[in-house]
Amino acid sequence: MSNVAVFGTGSFGTALANVLAQNGHDVLMWGKNKQTIDEINQFHTNSCYLNEAHLDKAIKATQNLKEATQFSDTYLIALPTKAIREVVQQIDAQLDSKKTFIHVAKGIENSTFERVSEMIEDSLSPEHNGGIGVLSGPSHAEEVVIQQPTTVAASSSDPKVSKQIQDLFMNDYLRVYTNDDLVGVELGGALKNIIAVASGIVAGMGFGDNAKAALMTRGLAEISRLGEELGADPMTFLGLGGIGDLIVTCTSTHSRNYTLGYKIGQGKTVDEALSEMSMVAEGFYTTESVYHLAKQKNIEMPITSALYGVLFENVPLDKSLKLLMGRDKKSE
Amino acid sequence: MSNVAVFGTGSFGTALANVLAQNGHDVLMWGKNKQTIDEINQFHTNSCYLNEAHLDKAIKATQNLKEATQFSDTYLIALPTKAIREVVQQIDAQLDSKKTFIHVAKGIENSTFERVSEMIEDSLSPEHNGGIGVLSGPSHAEEVVIQQPTTVAASSSDPKVSKQIQDLFMNDYLRVYTNDDLVGVELGGALKNIIAVASGIVAGMGFGDNAKAALMTRGLAEISRLGEELGADPMTFLGLGGIGDLIVTCTSTHSRNYTLGYKIGQGKTVDEALSEMSMVAEGFYTTESVYHLAKQKNIEMPITSALYGVLFENVPLDKSLKLLMGRDKKSE
Repeated sequence: MSNVAVFGTGSFGTALANVLAQNGHDVLMWGKNKQTIDEINQFHTNSCYLNEAHLDKAIKATQNLKEATQFSDTYLIALPTKAIREVVQQIDAQLDSKKTFIHVAKGIENSTFERVSEMIEDSLSPEHNGGIGVLSGPSHAEEVVIQQPTTVAASSSDPKVSKQIQDLFMNDYLRVYTNDDLVGVELGGALKNIIAVASGIVAGMGFGDNAKAALMTRGLAEISRLGEELGADPMTFLGLGGIGDLIVTCTSTHSRNYTLGYKIGQGKTVDEALSEMSMVAEGFYTTESVYHLAKQKNIEMPITSALYGVLFENVPLDKSLKLLMGRDKKSE
Repeated sequence: MSNVAVFGTGSFGTALANVLAQNGHDVLMWGKNKQTIDEINQFHTNSCYLNEAHLDKAIKATQNLKEATQFSDTYLIALPTKAIREVVQQIDAQLDSKKTFIHVAKGIENSTFERVSEMIEDSLSPEHNGGIGVLSGPSHAEEVVIQQPTTVAASSSDPKVSKQIQDLFMNDYLRVYTNDDLVGVELGGALKNIIAVASGIVAGMGFGDNAKAALMTRGLAEISRLGEELGADPMTFLGLGGIGDLIVTCTSTHSRNYTLGYKIGQGKTVDEALSEMSMVAEGFYTTESVYHLAKQKNIEMPITSALYGVLFENVPLDKSLKLLMGRDKKSE
């Protein structure tokens, strides 16, 4: 059994900390919010993010970053994309040996277009980098924490790290498949959030399942196109980290990205919808990154472009939809 | 504008007859049920299948097969797979010239493993075969008939027929993409019903969105594997007739295949669930065809096999699920 420090006390980090503890590993969570840390230690719940769910009592939590970095040789980084660079730099400053970093963030950095594993690598001194991997797939935290059957993909440029992730997390209710396409698995998780926001908008406007399925299908086509250009294996987008995650995010009310879109589809302004969200909807930021990246790479991404117009340029919803539906007779 | 005879008065045939009429074509529907025929002619509704939806008043309906065959050079065949052979043979007996056949059936024949276009070709005298095509995709009839935005794929081994289907059906709310992979489009529509029944079972048993998304993703992998073996382009399964139709069928309560599975998941016997269905759930028959076909071709289809066990061999649900979840550590 291993020690694992979990950085971040949001819903997915907490659910995975619980999986690790149930698998017999020693887990220390780190976070900034004193109330959440105390709640985990005293009551074994994280009510802000996971309602009534009871966590394994062996999970400990701390606000002390140094204590967390010293706790283990393997770290689970479960933070919003925007926080990754700062926290990993702070971790790096504490280290004097190599550590393995497993992350579950689903974004692309706005300023650099970097994937999260690249952001972690950039933020670490090379002598502290013991390998970086990702765990991704259709896995709402709310279901993982109550042991609903779930499957995910584990990926790294180092197969030993993928295998380590599989060994750490796999159990009766969580099936972990290794996948050697790190670029594809990371991009699948990030890019699908764009389609999830768009899907929420379409549903919020009152359109039906046919329209949503069409949007998801054409969305998958455009994110696969960009992924391939960026070095991913297009088949990865057919897997758990691609279409699997896309489906669960676009059809479940657990999804914050879908919820953000739904509010906008129902007529709220983007600012109103954002201000009503208690959790970060990564898709909002990813849309901005990917819109500019696609322009730079000269790749046609009609859904991303239409969504960028709605989110960042005040284009009215009905006009955007007409742009999408009103295109010429085409072949698939 | 063209004349089109529509054979079949079920939900999808009626919704597409309505699209054709709204696009300015003259439409005559043929069916066996006098009450439905009279209702379409007198009240312009088809309440058994489409509730309150108002159909275009220009649509006529008849029980007279000869009248229908003489009405047009283009036929829309909207019948259950099991009825295709008999009705097309009856049509053939009336003909003295070539006709174009467009079908929307989503099945594979049990005894021959033939796709529907092959069944039509077999049932026609060669001198009456003016081309055969299919229209398929994420398109619940209940939404098409109320003009919800919908996209579908049109395919044929003859590109002129695909184009003709696109020209006949495309309008403001129905986008038709041509696709030159007839085998893939037909198989996608048929095979996805297996996954839809399985998906309904999982939901009926009380499992969550993570499990359903995993099942759909792994289901797509196994139907693509069989499709490729049978000559389809695997990329077609990423398109509207593949993943698009899979999504809409597995996540919508409009789907009869999903509903059949849901009833079984909730504890009904297969016979009870079947007897409660007012419409044919093609997935039940397709599971039988595909189970035997996969065995013959020696292709691993774990979800189809597990479902076959439940539907045809009385394997208990919890045992089937354990077989699916309890497999070894794998890569995707």
